[in-house]
This record gives sequence, C-alpha cells and structure tokens, in this order.
Amino acid sequence: MKYSAISTSLAGSKAVILGGGGFIGTALREALHASGATVTIFARHAPAGPAIDLPDQWIVGDFNDTDGLSDALGGATHVFHLINGSIPQSANWNVRIELEMNVLPTLELLKLCVEQSVGKLIFISSGGTVYGPPTVVPILETAPTNPISAYGVGKLAVEKYLGLFHHHHGLDYQVIRLANPYGPHQHPQRPQGVVANMLYRAMTGQPFEIWGTGEVARDFIHVSDVAEAIVRSARYGGEHRIMNLGGGTALSVNRIARDIEETLGLVDHPRVFRESRSFDVPINFLDTSLIQRELDWRPSIDWCAGLADTADWMRAALEAGTLRVPSPV
Amino acid sequence: MKYSAISTSLAGSKAVILGGGGFIGTALREALHASGATVTIFARHAPAGPAIDLPDQWIVGDFNDTDGLSDALGGATHVFHLINGSIPQSANWNVRIELEMNVLPTLELLKLCVEQSVGKLIFISSGGTVYGPPTVVPILETAPTNPISAYGVGKLAVEKYLGLFHHHHGLDYQVIRLANPYGPHQHPQRPQGVVANMLYRAMTGQPFEIWGTGEVARDFIHVSDVAEAIVRSARYGGEHRIMNLGGGTALSVNRIARDIEETLGLVDHPRVFRESRSFDVPINFLDTSLIQRELDWRPSIDWCAGLADTADWMRAALEAGTLRVPSPV
Repeated sequence: MKYSAISTSLAGSKAVILGGGGFIGTALREALHASGATVTIFARHAPAGPAIDLPDQWIVGDFNDTDGLSDALGGATHVFHLINGSIPQSANWNVRIELEMNVLPTLELLKLCVEQSVGKLIFISSGGTVYGPPTVVPILETAPTNPISAYGVGKLAVEKYLGLFHHHHGLDYQVIRLANPYGPHQHPQRPQGVVANMLYRAMTGQPFEIWGTGEVARDFIHVSDVAEAIVRSARYGGEHRIMNLGGGTALSVNRIARDIEETLGLVDHPRVFRESRSFDVPINFLDTSLIQRELDWRPSIDWCAGLADTADWMRAALEAGTLRVPSPV
Repeated sequence: MKYSAISTSLAGSKAVILGGGGFIGTALREALHASGATVTIFARHAPAGPAIDLPDQWIVGDFNDTDGLSDALGGATHVFHLINGSIPQSANWNVRIELEMNVLPTLELLKLCVEQSVGKLIFISSGGTVYGPPTVVPILETAPTNPISAYGVGKLAVEKYLGLFHHHHGLDYQVIRLANPYGPHQHPQRPQGVVANMLYRAMTGQPFEIWGTGEVARDFIHVSDVAEAIVRSARYGGEHRIMNLGGGTALSVNRIARDIEETLGLVDHPRVFRESRSFDVPINFLDTSLIQRELDWRPSIDWCAGLADTADWMRAALEAGTLRVPSPV
C-alpha cells in the first residue's frame, strides 16, 4: 500500500515509534515517511528485513532500558507507543506479568515524555479488549469498560495514567482503541493475528484452527488504514482523547474461513475445532463515527480487497522464503 | 456507637479484615462482632489500644507477606480488604509506588482467595477518587471514571481485576466505593481525615488549615454507618458488583469549619489558607440510591450528631492522653 494520499503533513516533525519493528510499526513507518516526518524506531532487535524504506534512525533497546528510551525520545515531537510485552491470550492467571511488562515501563515512559517535553504521545490501546463483553454493538467510546483479560486491564490502566499525566503535568496525548488489524507483514504465528494465521494454514496445507463454534465475531481493519488514521491523530488538536479505530464491520471466524477459501480457490478446507477460550468476548465491533468525523478519515480498503492483498503478500513471502519470525517488539 | 440494630446475621461466618487495625477496621470489627461473625484481624501491628472488644484472632503481618496472608485467609467466608499502602495525596509523580504498594499485593490476594476458596471478597474502593472531576452530581455508579490521582487509578485497577478474577475463576466479590468517612478513632494527623484534622486543630489551639478557597466539597459519612453498610454488603447476593457508599450530602471545608466552631462554642477560630492541590476534585458527592435500595440501608447518623459524637470522642482521648499515632494499616 502507498500513502501518497495522506493529506496530513508532518513535515519537520520528529516521530518516534516505540515497538516500531513490528507489524503495525512497519506500516506506520511508511505512512510517517510519506507524511514528511523524520522517523526513529525504538525496537528490541535490529531490522530483520531488506534495508529498503528504513527509518532515519533505528535504536535497539528493551522497553525497560530507561537510558535507551530516553535517547530515543530526545527532541521528539510525536511518540507512538506500540509496544506490547504481552498478548491478550497470556497472563490471565499471573496478571502480575501484564503489569510488570507493560504498565510499569509505560509509567516510566510517561515520566520521560514529560521530562523531555515530548510534543504528543499517541498510545495504541485495544478496542478489542478494554470494553469486555459489550451490551450494545457497535461499541461507542463511552461504553462501560469491563475487560476479561489482563491485557485489557493493563491497556485501560495506561489510558487512565495518561489522563493523570495530562492533568498534573500537561502531557498531550491521544488514545487509539484499535480493533483487529490485518494485512501484509503480520506474522502468522503470533496468535493475535487470526487472518494471517488462517491464511498461512490454508496456504501450507494445515487445517483451520477454530476456537468454539467459530461464531465469535471481530472487527477487522487493514493495517494501512490503521497507519493513515494514526498519522492523522498525531495532528489532531480536538477534545476527544479516546477514539475507536476499526473497519466498520464484524466478521465471524467462520466467515473469514469461507472468504479465505474463496480467495485462494479452495473448497471445504479442513477445520479443527478447539474449546472456546474464556478471555474471548463473543463479539467486538467498534463504532467509529467519532474518529471518522474528528479526523476526516475512513477506511479505504474493503475486506475482500484487503484479504486478497494480504494473500498476495504472504504467497510472495512464502515463495521467497522470507516469512520468518519477526523481531519481537 | 452500637450495632444492635444490625439485622444482617453473619452468625457462623468467619470474617477476616485486612487492614483491620485502622479507623474503618475498628468500626467494622465491632459491627461484625454484633452480627455474630468470628473476626480475624490482619494488620501490620499488634493492637495498640486497650484490650476490650478485641477480635477472636489478630495476625500481625505485612500485606506483602504472602504466607501470613494465606494463614489469615484460611477458612474465611468473608474477607474485607481495607488496606491502603498509600493515600490520595501521595505518589502522583511516582505513580509506580501506588501500583507496587497497593495493586500488586492485591493481585496476590486475589489469587490466594481463589486458591483458598474464600466465600466473598469485599473491597473498599474510593468513591472520592475513582470518578475524577464529575460532570454531574450526585455521582452515579455508571458515571465515567477518570481519576486525577494515582490512588484513584490504583483503586480502579483493582476493581477491574476483581471483575477479571470473577470471570475466570468465579471469585465472588463486592466493591464499595466509599465517600469520606469520619467519626471516632480517626486519627487527626493522617491527611485523609479532614474532619478529625480540623477538630484536633480547633481543640489544640491551632488554626484550621484550608486548601484553596475552602469551597471544595466532599461527601461525609459516619464510620458506624459505613460499618453497617459493609456488613450488609457481605450478605448481598444481587447483581450489582459496585455500589457507592456516602452520607447523602456535600459539605464544603468552610462549612465544616463553621460547624466545628458551633459544636465547640468557638468564635472566628483562625484559618490559614494553603494553595489548592491539583489532585483535589472540586466536588464529590455520591448518589447512594443503589446501595439504599439493594441493601435496605440508609445512613442513621446525621452530620451534626456525628460531629458532636466525634468531638466527644476526641475530647476524651485528648484528656486521657490516648490520642496517639495509630497502627498503620
């Protein structure tokens, strides 16, 4: 995907992407480049792929490494916080891990941002987990927040701490409650990417793995639409600190399986059913009217085109042998 | 205050009060005794006062001492979590302290409660801080929660973790979002007790200390009304996991000063004004219709009677020389 259509200029800005080596970070990096910003990546590993479209600066460091983080933030006008030390599926018994891996280091980050006078912090929260089981769909930003995963509680806690740092220290921030992103560069073996996982299994002759009845429905959005919205949010100066970001439709896992079959020309690809997971909400589908109105943004890639695009990327990566485990962010 | 009117029998129950050596714990202990429960106190220090009305068991331990905590919880039907490692006024820059002192040990507590099959956990949350600056008063339980203190974020995080442990592990729980309690045994030198502090200053010839204009208003409730409501909540089996608990009126600091003057027969007691504090919300006043309906409870001690009662207690304590720094909980 190309970002020539991005109307929001960030020329002269210094953007820092924390966790910029991952799936969303890769798309965001391209979008920020297209918008004219200089880009610094802070990631746990050196770039793994070919050295095209590399950012201006790549700093290798751990999220707990305060000195490295501090270096990365120097002079930043916009900091994009994409780091996830854990995933929704983990740590529901030992919830302490979620606090220690994500929340505590983020508190240090907030302090650093204040100390370094960072212009704005954009935090990618989780529209799929902070609300918990919804009473009404699509879900508005004002809906109750009752997460059923430690991951969701951690994201919500960070949102609250952002409010605190804004109140006490004037930290400017934006929270994006992101639905399920999919698209090129999403690794199929990380469990949060159901589209990539199912595509990969179909392309490599493995059965689809489906939890529960497969009627669990999620809100999917192409990663290039995500990147465009995030770049726009960086320049937003309005009053809404929290915005949903989703694709506008809810797709069940069964529907995704059928659409993948159609895209790849498969018939009755085998399915194995697993026990449903207690941290999965039955449906998640975000109301995105706020972000559409405030950022003058809308998703540009429909589901079928996006799925075909993702399949093309994965086919090419499989053929080239470049589909490897990516740098953890 | 006596608790003969408590209609909710807890005969046969084993109640454990975590942080039972403090102000609320002392009243709750009496109320639980009156309801027929056996009572275990878990506190950081041995009982400081005279050995009257002592509980059946007093375990000295730190909240981080998992073994001691585990001993205290053995066979408990009801656990009342009153421990505060920090106070609203602290830790707004180093918010990490709040997480480490209150939230992380509470996560261990939740695990222990599940492992030990504790019947129900009653968590005393903070109606004065979890909501942040209200848009509407009185504040309903469904109002937005945007704390402006690290203390409030910590309390809110614990509420969310309780929901998580209920969802995944069936932990039964009740959250009480408590307003500002006042009454006998509240120590005047702990900053969260404005009534005790102002009474003490008036009785010892020190000027009232007032932050800002003194028009900051709070919702006060007598501690014996608090204790009665908490005991009732232990037996509650309805659907409302979160309930406000307050006195039903908002009183400004200036009003409290005037009422203390009247109670003590003072005229124009001196006041010193301090700069207003950024963690103080301008008004906090809880809607308590839910708890009144669900627990068939209402406050029984009006403000003037409660203030006189508190003044009597403090006068006696000052004369007897027993007003000392209490066991921290």
